[in-house]
Amino acid sequence: MNRVGSKAAHPTKCLWPALRSTRPAASVFLGVPPLFLYAARMHTLNVELGERRYPIYIGSGLLGRTDLLAPHIPGRQVLVVSNETVAPLYLERLSAALNGFRQHTVILPDGEQYKTLEVLNRIYDALLQNRCDRDVTLIALGGGVVGDITGFAAASYQRGVNFIQVPTTLLAQVDSSVGGKTGVNHPLGKNMIGAFYQPRCVIADTATLNTLPDRELSAGLAEVIKYGLIRDAGFFAWLESNLDALLARNPDVLAYAIERSCRNKAEVVVEDERESGQRALLNFGHTFGHAIETGMGYGAWLHGEAVATGMCMAARLSQRLGWISSVDVARVDTLIARAHLPTQPPAELDAARFLDLMAVDKKVKDGRVRLVLLRGIGESVVSGDYDPVQLRASLERDTQQSGARAS
Amino acid sequence: MNRVGSKAAHPTKCLWPALRSTRPAASVFLGVPPLFLYAARMHTLNVELGERRYPIYIGSGLLGRTDLLAPHIPGRQVLVVSNETVAPLYLERLSAALNGFRQHTVILPDGEQYKTLEVLNRIYDALLQNRCDRDVTLIALGGGVVGDITGFAAASYQRGVNFIQVPTTLLAQVDSSVGGKTGVNHPLGKNMIGAFYQPRCVIADTATLNTLPDRELSAGLAEVIKYGLIRDAGFFAWLESNLDALLARNPDVLAYAIERSCRNKAEVVVEDERESGQRALLNFGHTFGHAIETGMGYGAWLHGEAVATGMCMAARLSQRLGWISSVDVARVDTLIARAHLPTQPPAELDAARFLDLMAVDKKVKDGRVRLVLLRGIGESVVSGDYDPVQLRASLERDTQQSGARAS
Repeated sequence: MNRVGSKAAHPTKCLWPALRSTRPAASVFLGVPPLFLYAARMHTLNVELGERRYPIYIGSGLLGRTDLLAPHIPGRQVLVVSNETVAPLYLERLSAALNGFRQHTVILPDGEQYKTLEVLNRIYDALLQNRCDRDVTLIALGGGVVGDITGFAAASYQRGVNFIQVPTTLLAQVDSSVGGKTGVNHPLGKNMIGAFYQPRCVIADTATLNTLPDRELSAGLAEVIKYGLIRDAGFFAWLESNLDALLARNPDVLAYAIERSCRNKAEVVVEDERESGQRALLNFGHTFGHAIETGMGYGAWLHGEAVATGMCMAARLSQRLGWISSVDVARVDTLIARAHLPTQPPAELDAARFLDLMAVDKKVKDGRVRLVLLRGIGESVVSGDYDPVQLRASLERDTQQSGARAS
Repeated sequence: MNRVGSKAAHPTKCLWPALRSTRPAASVFLGVPPLFLYAARMHTLNVELGERRYPIYIGSGLLGRTDLLAPHIPGRQVLVVSNETVAPLYLERLSAALNGFRQHTVILPDGEQYKTLEVLNRIYDALLQNRCDRDVTLIALGGGVVGDITGFAAASYQRGVNFIQVPTTLLAQVDSSVGGKTGVNHPLGKNMIGAFYQPRCVIADTATLNTLPDRELSAGLAEVIKYGLIRDAGFFAWLESNLDALLARNPDVLAYAIERSCRNKAEVVVEDERESGQRALLNFGHTFGHAIETGMGYGAWLHGEAVATGMCMAARLSQRLGWISSVDVARVDTLIARAHLPTQPPAELDAARFLDLMAVDKKVKDGRVRLVLLRGIGESVVSGDYDPVQLRASLERDTQQSGARAS
């Protein structure tokens, strides 16, 4: 049990795997340092997408490193997009690192409810008012919303300009900044307008997590847990052992979780960049989660919170279909609750409303909602081949429990 | 002088080349029929872009052919986008050909001033209200505006869905429907927001040109003339000989001009899909033209009218630089005037305003406006390597002449 990434037959025994071992690097992650030194050095992951290949730099204090930024900026102009929360904390340092470039800035309001076409248009306005040409580089400094909207601006301004992601939330560092999904929401559906568009590089400065509110940290953990559930049982077990250290923001443990999450994501994306197949597994919990986000109004629930609940709902449906055991469901529920994340949907949405909202999901194919479901911890499938009666029954039980809890 | 596409040393002698010859197909266009039979059969041009390869079907009455449409529609749902002018004329026939598919329709207002983010959003609304999933096929039935905006909707809805172009104007048939440029305008610059996105097929029904207003026919001829000027001297000479027949809507002559234009465009696009080099030649006249369109307000001048004037302005600048002769300039001016197109910019714009508007063009690179200029009839270059004083002088002369004419 001392190899990171190995299958954990007895997950409860899997404490700090590979970390206290005296054997070096007997790991699926070659060159992995001892965990207690993890945060001290920079890690580089390359996402191997041919001519769209790009590096993810992970480490503390990377935000201010001109040597990482400059090689990925081909022109002389940059436009930094950030939000009202993040800009006061980190814009100055990033700006200093960009000394020598002609800099422009757009500060957006903070929140999922601003990931709209109208707010996107503010970025276009700034680009045109500042006479930015095709050599401009857009830099997204912030969380998932800033990254998604800036990425789509980069994909569509003059039919495509350069783009760098500097994610400052755990969720953005492990998920939304990696893989090239960009876009904005529509009142009728989340992420319905967008493009696949890869950044030139991703700079994940783990030191920015020190200022992250607890609620945002938990939301990010939802996506971290997701990687364990869909394809990395060893990681899930490691999370069961290390969740308290993550919540306590132990920098080594956080940096390790970020790298392992990004590596999992990168492996999936490289195999299926445009989501014609296996990439859909990354949407585990998301079809339920998007229904919550859209149904409750964007911004009411954080994306990670909605996904956390969605993963619990998907696990319970998987159990109802006889694909996983009640023990597995309990492990999912327990870990998510320990991460201070919700496991039950909001009382405001009933089963009929869920079905209605889920019908506009991007995974719908010829009218049939395909779901990511579990075959075990660390094993998932994309399937439209389930009994719809079971889906409805599962939703009814989930939402009745919420209703009972609320009343 | 009986081979289509050959260099014309004495263009005025180049009357109906290849048409009255008894020798079959001694032509760069293999299998070309005698011109007097040209419109009677369908021509298929394949744009060879690897996995994005697609056919352009050219011929009379193709709009109603299920056998051409259906193989390019992978799902069961289609959304037809048209405008208030074209829909009453052709929507019913297209709709009949799509019998068997679940059909939705969006009718946009007609005109360049509606190629905006707001109008684009109406397409997203319709897609979501009708629960269109990733298997939906968007069909653009109309001119360049409908094609550009629908193409961008297809590129960005759920990060990319299927798309078919059914162009009904000469300009769209020879230019905007071919090559994958999609997008909308911004108040500060034309086509500033968009994507490269290829259709599944293009269906150019030449019979739709019978209902085209004269002004629109002329606007389309501007782009036809462009192909002659930038890369096909033989075609330019052929146009000098056949312009009256084109204006009289001789179906054989029109069909031949459309195919030769599309072939020229396809050859350029295949070499440089994303405009990193030679594709910029297709923008001959466009940097000046876009300045006119933006400066006068979208819709005041038709795109083809602005491009026609822009080509004359580019030719005059080329002469000022000593690259072409006054005889060449006269040939350009004469042919464009014969096509009932303007050769002088509007009196409302002076040289300073032109320079200002041209500075936001997509061909600007590190602050320098690159222009497409002529080295001869049928020979063009993209260049930022000209004396800016000459550009200003040329603009001043052009705009003073307009001012004098207007006063």
